[in-house]
Amino acid sequence: MVSSERELISLLGERFAWPSADVRLGIGDDAAVLATQHEPLVVSVDASVEGVHFDLEYLTAEDVGYRSFQAAVSDLAAMGAHPVAALSALVLPRQLSSEAIDQLTLGQAQASRETGCPVVGGNVARGRELSITTTVIGRAPEPLQRRGARPGDQVWLVGNVGLAAAGLSYLRLRGARGARAWPARVHARTRASDAALAPCVEAWRRPRARLAEGLELVGRASAAIDLSDGLASDARQLASASGVRLVIERERLRAALPPALCVAQAQLRRSALRFALEGGEDYALLATGPSARRPAFALPIGHVERGRGAFLDDGARLGVLRGGFDHLKR
Amino acid sequence: MVSSERELISLLGERFAWPSADVRLGIGDDAAVLATQHEPLVVSVDASVEGVHFDLEYLTAEDVGYRSFQAAVSDLAAMGAHPVAALSALVLPRQLSSEAIDQLTLGQAQASRETGCPVVGGNVARGRELSITTTVIGRAPEPLQRRGARPGDQVWLVGNVGLAAAGLSYLRLRGARGARAWPARVHARTRASDAALAPCVEAWRRPRARLAEGLELVGRASAAIDLSDGLASDARQLASASGVRLVIERERLRAALPPALCVAQAQLRRSALRFALEGGEDYALLATGPSARRPAFALPIGHVERGRGAFLDDGARLGVLRGGFDHLKR
Repeated sequence: MVSSERELISLLGERFAWPSADVRLGIGDDAAVLATQHEPLVVSVDASVEGVHFDLEYLTAEDVGYRSFQAAVSDLAAMGAHPVAALSALVLPRQLSSEAIDQLTLGQAQASRETGCPVVGGNVARGRELSITTTVIGRAPEPLQRRGARPGDQVWLVGNVGLAAAGLSYLRLRGARGARAWPARVHARTRASDAALAPCVEAWRRPRARLAEGLELVGRASAAIDLSDGLASDARQLASASGVRLVIERERLRAALPPALCVAQAQLRRSALRFALEGGEDYALLATGPSARRPAFALPIGHVERGRGAFLDDGARLGVLRGGFDHLKR
Repeated sequence: MVSSERELISLLGERFAWPSADVRLGIGDDAAVLATQHEPLVVSVDASVEGVHFDLEYLTAEDVGYRSFQAAVSDLAAMGAHPVAALSALVLPRQLSSEAIDQLTLGQAQASRETGCPVVGGNVARGRELSITTTVIGRAPEPLQRRGARPGDQVWLVGNVGLAAAGLSYLRLRGARGARAWPARVHARTRASDAALAPCVEAWRRPRARLAEGLELVGRASAAIDLSDGLASDARQLASASGVRLVIERERLRAALPPALCVAQAQLRRSALRFALEGGEDYALLATGPSARRPAFALPIGHVERGRGAFLDDGARLGVLRGGFDHLKR
């Protein structure tokens, strides 16, 4: 198995190599070389840190590699960009087995192929905690930004929200009590919930960047953001960047929630709306745009008004949207 | 001071903002947007991890930020590329003070300005150990690669080697014994060495990417690599990538060594050649090319032959070049 940096880089060079018209020189030199880009470039970086973004108790090393890559590519989706290339910087603790490193990079390679985003370089270093930092480079004739939402626009949801948070809650509950020792109040439903909550667990373990949908939003949406820190938090970001008030309509959001989230609400004793508003890591997209331009895959969940901030309209009154993930406050 | 992710990102947005024709949208959205590039793109990523690449006992947080940035940009220098933009991913331990974070980003900002490489985005996450992962993007009409060295070429050294390793050795020796309690054998020379070794300490604390020299090498050099892991190790890399034998001539290398390294040899009781061959983190450049095309700043230290591997010629015989840094073996 892998015992030196050179061996690992050589393995990665083989594992990540596939033909792309954008890549002139891949892994192995001081830097990779990409072809001249005739469209504006979109660049972003995202880190997954053990104990913060993931826990090896609930994920295989392959899951960790896969989801860290999709999370990074999700920023390209939110910008309406075509993937061009990615760079992967790994910090590997000594106790991580070479099998685990192998599986991790297999997960990255799988996500790389699925997203059409070749890994062209990276870095390998020792450290005390496992982290995967993924840089993504894309091209976009008209990048979608967080600013641009206008009063009168609809608010659109692309993809599922809340599932990933419900999946993690389920795994923690099960894990904390042991796989077979559920808390008494949900014990009778264990078998049913195991199967019914599978979509939640899958959403958390194997998120998918909404690249095709992001590209379709170009020319239709006025603004977009990806939902990594939770719908409430990311709605505030979009409202702030656009200088508008963003209102989520509770009943429309409820109608847009996936069925598995209602199962999660019953099994995990937490409101589906709370999972949707406060749970992160779904990598769905939140966008705004005129209702006449809404693509079928984008579900209307609210509207944009003059003003500031992000609110939840329950039909009777507006409540300020709170909650979400702050990486420094955690 | 900085207490939330939003505050830090806002601070970075201000600190790192300066006008560049290449940058259309900087820090604050899902991704940054760069202008269309009319030349091939060169991309690379480099990580600095606490306890592996640096030790806060010997460096200020500002040094850590500065050197991590220069180390990353050095890969652009080795490719003969103009910097376009950088992304900075920080993993910040809870015990790192907000003053230290402030100083760290000041160091990055200083290096960003000095290298003409604007920071356009990044990521902030909590973790147990401090790490700084810097992605750099450049443009190069004719990227210099590690492959391309031909038998008959000279081997050129651009910049100083060995100083950084000598500087770190000095700091460790001084630190381990306390700043005023030197080992008896060098005690008498302490004051002299403190001043005489300052260039070594400075080389380790504040390395400088050889961007201007890298650009000058384009059209002259046949191959190039930056010296991050040590001259011996990086010479092997260049030889291997080019499919040639690279011979360092001992007397020429000795003649190319900076005077401070001779002081270090005397004070630290380690051969100047060993510092030069085995010490890393100098971020000098090693290049090959026809002697007729050698720029004045590139010092000839050897030659390229048919064959394989990297060797040291002491005038009488060839010795295999060993040593250097392997990030997974450490």
